[in-house]
Amino acid sequence: MQDFTYCSPTAIFFGKDSEKYIGEQSRRLGKKVLLHYGGGSIKQSGLYDVVIEALKKENISVVELGGVKPNPRLSLVHEGIDLCRREGVEGVLAVGGGSAIDSAKAIAAGVPYDGDVWDFFSRKATAKKMLPVGVVLTLPAAGSEASPATVVTKEETNEKLGLVNEVFRPVFAVMNPERTYTLPPFQTACGAVDIMAHVMERYFTNEPDVAFSDRMCEALLKTIVEQAPRALENPEDYASRAEIMWAGTIAHNDLLGRGRIEDWSSHGIEHELSAFYDAAHGAGLAVIFPAWMKHVYKQNIQRFVQFSVRVWGVPYTANDEERIVLEGIRRMEQFFISIGLPVTLKGLGITDRNYRRMAEKASLSAPGVFCPLTVEDIERIYELAE
Amino acid sequence: MQDFTYCSPTAIFFGKDSEKYIGEQSRRLGKKVLLHYGGGSIKQSGLYDVVIEALKKENISVVELGGVKPNPRLSLVHEGIDLCRREGVEGVLAVGGGSAIDSAKAIAAGVPYDGDVWDFFSRKATAKKMLPVGVVLTLPAAGSEASPATVVTKEETNEKLGLVNEVFRPVFAVMNPERTYTLPPFQTACGAVDIMAHVMERYFTNEPDVAFSDRMCEALLKTIVEQAPRALENPEDYASRAEIMWAGTIAHNDLLGRGRIEDWSSHGIEHELSAFYDAAHGAGLAVIFPAWMKHVYKQNIQRFVQFSVRVWGVPYTANDEERIVLEGIRRMEQFFISIGLPVTLKGLGITDRNYRRMAEKASLSAPGVFCPLTVEDIERIYELAE
Repeated sequence: MQDFTYCSPTAIFFGKDSEKYIGEQSRRLGKKVLLHYGGGSIKQSGLYDVVIEALKKENISVVELGGVKPNPRLSLVHEGIDLCRREGVEGVLAVGGGSAIDSAKAIAAGVPYDGDVWDFFSRKATAKKMLPVGVVLTLPAAGSEASPATVVTKEETNEKLGLVNEVFRPVFAVMNPERTYTLPPFQTACGAVDIMAHVMERYFTNEPDVAFSDRMCEALLKTIVEQAPRALENPEDYASRAEIMWAGTIAHNDLLGRGRIEDWSSHGIEHELSAFYDAAHGAGLAVIFPAWMKHVYKQNIQRFVQFSVRVWGVPYTANDEERIVLEGIRRMEQFFISIGLPVTLKGLGITDRNYRRMAEKASLSAPGVFCPLTVEDIERIYELAE
Repeated sequence: MQDFTYCSPTAIFFGKDSEKYIGEQSRRLGKKVLLHYGGGSIKQSGLYDVVIEALKKENISVVELGGVKPNPRLSLVHEGIDLCRREGVEGVLAVGGGSAIDSAKAIAAGVPYDGDVWDFFSRKATAKKMLPVGVVLTLPAAGSEASPATVVTKEETNEKLGLVNEVFRPVFAVMNPERTYTLPPFQTACGAVDIMAHVMERYFTNEPDVAFSDRMCEALLKTIVEQAPRALENPEDYASRAEIMWAGTIAHNDLLGRGRIEDWSSHGIEHELSAFYDAAHGAGLAVIFPAWMKHVYKQNIQRFVQFSVRVWGVPYTANDEERIVLEGIRRMEQFFISIGLPVTLKGLGITDRNYRRMAEKASLSAPGVFCPLTVEDIERIYELAE
């Protein structure tokens, strides 16, 4: 086990009645806040009105910026930064899923920074502070509501880059599982896979002696495998919506990675699918993760045996490691298919075999930690995903 | 699942090199701190010198109060409060295990309070603030290093009372598993059981739809069952010491109880053993928990079946619930015995059958949540533990 530090100070308000905390908590953001969100869904659902009412009650002035898209764009971040500066905004309240939160974090980090906020993503500079960010979560997936991470896409250059910095942790997150009832099945499924991917990026490590975090990772994976089909079968099943939402936060608030060396290659390889084809992140991960596994499992076959046996219930048989591993991967693919996701690039609608170019870019953000990956390896992973 | 709020802001510094953070972090306690600890073990181990050196480097003045005993005493807490006030101490650094930390919390809460700090424990008053408390942990067990809880014993009246209040969370905890190498086997085992008990007090709930936290609880229990024997077999096994230490923090920082209705009866019933006979808390729990289980399992036999099957690996057989449950409890008892602990009052050296008096007192703090307990029920639990 590696030495580590850990602090997850985001205050979580979870449940059916959690929205009553929005006003009180938003005071921590300042007297004037940017309300940042995506499209019309929060207006249709009535959540927009709940938030506006809560802020009004606390005499918090509101500046609005909607229009966040999945794979949030740098151009909107720039617009938000300008708006916040012009209006003297003191904090940002993101209402939505990972895209709204990630966009909010980028805006909040950009406001007090002299240069271009993209400097943080391109590793030219390190963010030292961020305006306080609060979250009202409507989509469990990214885990950004309590994570130190953000991911933004620069449209002109097809660059989708992630960033981890402790200053990016939101100060609070309000999480009402009922707000996820109206998620379309595809988004529910994509969220489930994103959550699982956050765990698997941490699970596949060569670090020995990580027994406790292994078991917590497995607990979380099994929870999603059990609960996601229930939420799809009955979108208003509070219990399964709540389990998924809470698991989504824990999957990415860094608890499960402590003491481990994390990988994150599959995320990097998937990011190119989002950057080039605007693929839904979760669906892209459902395609890339099995391919990545098939390419790297020999690196540490014992770990993959444990994964197959403990998470996917593959019976253990002596002297049959490879079969156990492949059966585990097959069961994972079957699970992804069962919740309505593609497990091939073709299924994603990607057939132009632009692998070399994507691999060259991916190799910058996904050099491979669990298993070192060359540009050729990444190309091969795209091929395996065909 | 119940609605909940959750915030665990304690900064954790974990690992072989974690002690380098002691000085820097202690600046958060103020310019003058009370160094609070138990007996001579931290002096023998050299940790005392490491801490003093670190504080000196940061020009932090030190006032010392050693002498904390297991089941920390109110009289020493009073002495600490007087000392802090007299010396103008700004924060408290606890070096040791749960007793030192709990005593430090009580001192730190008492200093800014006008009345007697015991008012908080007797529920006459609620603590509104506490001097900042830092921790250098040497004994994984109580989980007090990141918990909002403290337990103190009032000697004159044999009252051992616990208290939970969010203001009681330490600001930081430095955790070097190597510092636990010199723990005697009995203390290692008691710590393991205390950690398991913190999880089981949360696990046994009648709240439905707690799938994720169930699985996290089971992950933690299985980790201790796997790792404690390794630490006992080889006290300098870094891996097992680290797993136990980290699990001990997560067992009690409240993560595992979110959304659940917790019980805590066994702790209340055990506290009387500590109060009347100064029993080691972990050993007392090894005696009380199996007896409590035997008395209450019919309340929710399905939950006990899950516990037996998932944690203790009892094979599931249809129409055989009672046998499965009793086999699970038996395996737990066998585990406690295997790590050198008693599972009977006799084994603890308690033979005077003072059950009625203890039950009357215990019923005040252990009314039973999972299963309501009368004074007679608690008496029966002591009898089952004979």
